[in-house]
Amino acid sequence: MFEARLTQGGLLKKVLEAIKDLVSDANFDCSPTGFSLQAMDSSHVSLVAMQLRSDGFEHYRCDRNLNMGLNLGNMAKMLKCANNDDIITMKAEDAGDTVTFMFESPSQDRISDFELKLMDIDSEQLGIPDTDYAATVKMPSAEFARICKDLASIGETVAISVTKDGVKFSTSGDIGSANITVRQNTAVDKPDEQTVIDLNEPVMLTFALRYLNSFAKATPLSPCVIMSMSKELPVVVEYRIADMGHISFYLAPKIDDEEMEDGNE
Amino acid sequence: MFEARLTQGGLLKKVLEAIKDLVSDANFDCSPTGFSLQAMDSSHVSLVAMQLRSDGFEHYRCDRNLNMGLNLGNMAKMLKCANNDDIITMKAEDAGDTVTFMFESPSQDRISDFELKLMDIDSEQLGIPDTDYAATVKMPSAEFARICKDLASIGETVAISVTKDGVKFSTSGDIGSANITVRQNTAVDKPDEQTVIDLNEPVMLTFALRYLNSFAKATPLSPCVIMSMSKELPVVVEYRIADMGHISFYLAPKIDDEEMEDGNE
Amino acid sequence: MFEARLTQGGLLKKVLEAIKDLVSDANFDCSPTGFSLQAMDSSHVSLVAMQLRSDGFEHYRCDRNLNMGLNLGNMAKMLKCANNDDIITMKAEDAGDTVTFMFESPSQDRISDFELKLMDIDSEQLGIPDTDYAATVKMPSAEFARICKDLASIGETVAISVTKDGVKFSTSGDIGSANITVRQNTAVDKPDEQTVIDLNEPVMLTFALRYLNSFAKATPLSPCVIMSMSKELPVVVEYRIADMGHISFYLAPKIDDEEMEDGNE
Repeated sequence: MFEARLTQGGLLKKVLEAIKDLVSDANFDCSPTGFSLQAMDSSHVSLVAMQLRSDGFEHYRCDRNLNMGLNLGNMAKMLKCANNDDIITMKAEDAGDTVTFMFESPSQDRISDFELKLMDIDSEQLGIPDTDYAATVKMPSAEFARICKDLASIGETVAISVTKDGVKFSTSGDIGSANITVRQNTAVDKPDEQTVIDLNEPVMLTFALRYLNSFAKATPLSPCVIMSMSKELPVVVEYRIADMGHISFYLAPKIDDEEMEDGNE
Repeated sequence: MFEARLTQGGLLKKVLEAIKDLVSDANFDCSPTGFSLQAMDSSHVSLVAMQLRSDGFEHYRCDRNLNMGLNLGNMAKMLKCANNDDIITMKAEDAGDTVTFMFESPSQDRISDFELKLMDIDSEQLGIPDTDYAATVKMPSAEFARICKDLASIGETVAISVTKDGVKFSTSGDIGSANITVRQNTAVDKPDEQTVIDLNEPVMLTFALRYLNSFAKATPLSPCVIMSMSKELPVVVEYRIADMGHISFYLAPKIDDEEMEDGNE
Repeated sequence: MFEARLTQGGLLKKVLEAIKDLVSDANFDCSPTGFSLQAMDSSHVSLVAMQLRSDGFEHYRCDRNLNMGLNLGNMAKMLKCANNDDIITMKAEDAGDTVTFMFESPSQDRISDFELKLMDIDSEQLGIPDTDYAATVKMPSAEFARICKDLASIGETVAISVTKDGVKFSTSGDIGSANITVRQNTAVDKPDEQTVIDLNEPVMLTFALRYLNSFAKATPLSPCVIMSMSKELPVVVEYRIADMGHISFYLAPKIDDEEMEDGNE
């Protein structure tokens, strides 16, 4: 028996909105420590790892590990029927073939239960090694989303170059080229509006904007995004989920003969 | 000569928005008692009846009964050109072939007249018998609209079951099933936010969600919707229009061999 | 070398939004007196003339006259990447083949430069004679935009008739006809909400609504629009840009055998 009750039901809605376009079917892992998911996107280029720790739920019970294979589009459809301030409870029997989402309005005047069919999905869990990254950038998630969207109107890839002073995003395309530089800024009062760079050595990597724009759908989950980069390693784009978990996206850099020439400025 | 002046011109705009997608052409009946319409939807499944009583208009003159056949899409196009706070006056000659809509801005700085061609439309007036319904539910119209929209993302029909404690809306489809229960709630201060159930006997009827979603386009007309139901009879979904009238939609229940099994819970 | 810095960068964004759908490619003229453009729309029916005077920029340098041929769609794409409160600087070398748009956020935390390729565009400058117009109407730009949009849902052309009391916009189409009269109104406190008619002699001209609706895309630039009309001459539809310039659209009237009969009322 798995049962997990989340007062901030809106979080679960946002998690689904963040990943449903990237991944169509996936296994959710329910274990005593939490509710998690790891999946490749449909084109097998990027990886998403999500975790909600059990201690973040008001009530959490998981008698034995459970793998729930779900179509994320259908799951998102059902969660869309919850209001943002609804309490959401997920329930599944150990040998059942459905999962139930229960939505309660804060006043308890409206109670819904949605039952979604489970699917059998092949998946293998990839080990993600712990890495000391050459550069870590924490910046406002809305600004990151805006930059990826803007640059995608000019080019298809972005070179992200991190120095101690700032992060530079560069692209070029048929109509011209663009550079956007965001400076380190730890002075503002609100930590969520800061741009903080933690640098071991400067790094410059190139990525497909299409995927970064997909990742940016997680923006409503957190005011900040954290990018961790090392030469030739996948970037990690991480969004923290309240005090209870995170969504992390992994994307390998493009290895090109002709990298953008001014990326190490 | 027919002439009717409505200070709250926005009401007439909303009436048209509520019915124009359901009914394409219809006869408006102008009589000394009011301005009304009764029409089947284009697929002859549901019926809409609208009435605006003459005493709700600032000025109302109707020398003899008049039948104005109008294309509702074109009428809605013209009414869209009125601002929500405009005063709207309708005018038609007894033997004319047009109706004129005059829009006056509250400051009188802007005056428009739109002339729409009349059409000959065959129609027969159905008698709607007065009925004592087994169950009547008054609930917030926005909540009713939201439920019908949400359930339509899961299934095609909804079983509405009314008991003394609440109303349960149930559907099922390929991806799973859903139940939404709204509890009777007469405690809230604002009558418009209450859910009030008036029950002679429990009732459970099944309807096509497509039509209920059409009816819900009347939501802007009233904060409440009133559903009246009896076994094997069409449901009435009624929206009151200020103190001057109403729109009522009638829809026959689906009579199925296999009704939803838990509908009488 | 051309360099022009505009603190109100949002103005340049709005200028591009106002003309990019009407004109696809055009030459911008940079001269010591200002930054301007004159171009026919793609169907060679209407003319747009834009000017931003050099004294309206914080910094303006133009060593010699420069003609920058640009695709306006691509230029608008790049300017969309600026925030409305960004400072925008345009830079071009005398013999270069690109123009650079630099965007600075007010806090200087984010600096972008977008480089757009120049094009060779044939164009001839038309002389626009100074004219004393028979009638000039200044009215709220949003109201003008709304009227053109509303009438386009009924007909394809609009007869604009100006008398000392007001301006009447008339159209007719398959479903009926419409007249909208805006009265002279100089009483309101706010000059931007006034309708002011300056009349030498009454005038009535007919125009294609399609073009007026295109011109109305300049509405965000100014709270007022000024229409200047004389018999058989193109109307001028002018939007002032802050204290530094204007966009003016010119459109020839339709000369029809059968003009709308009640246009001179």
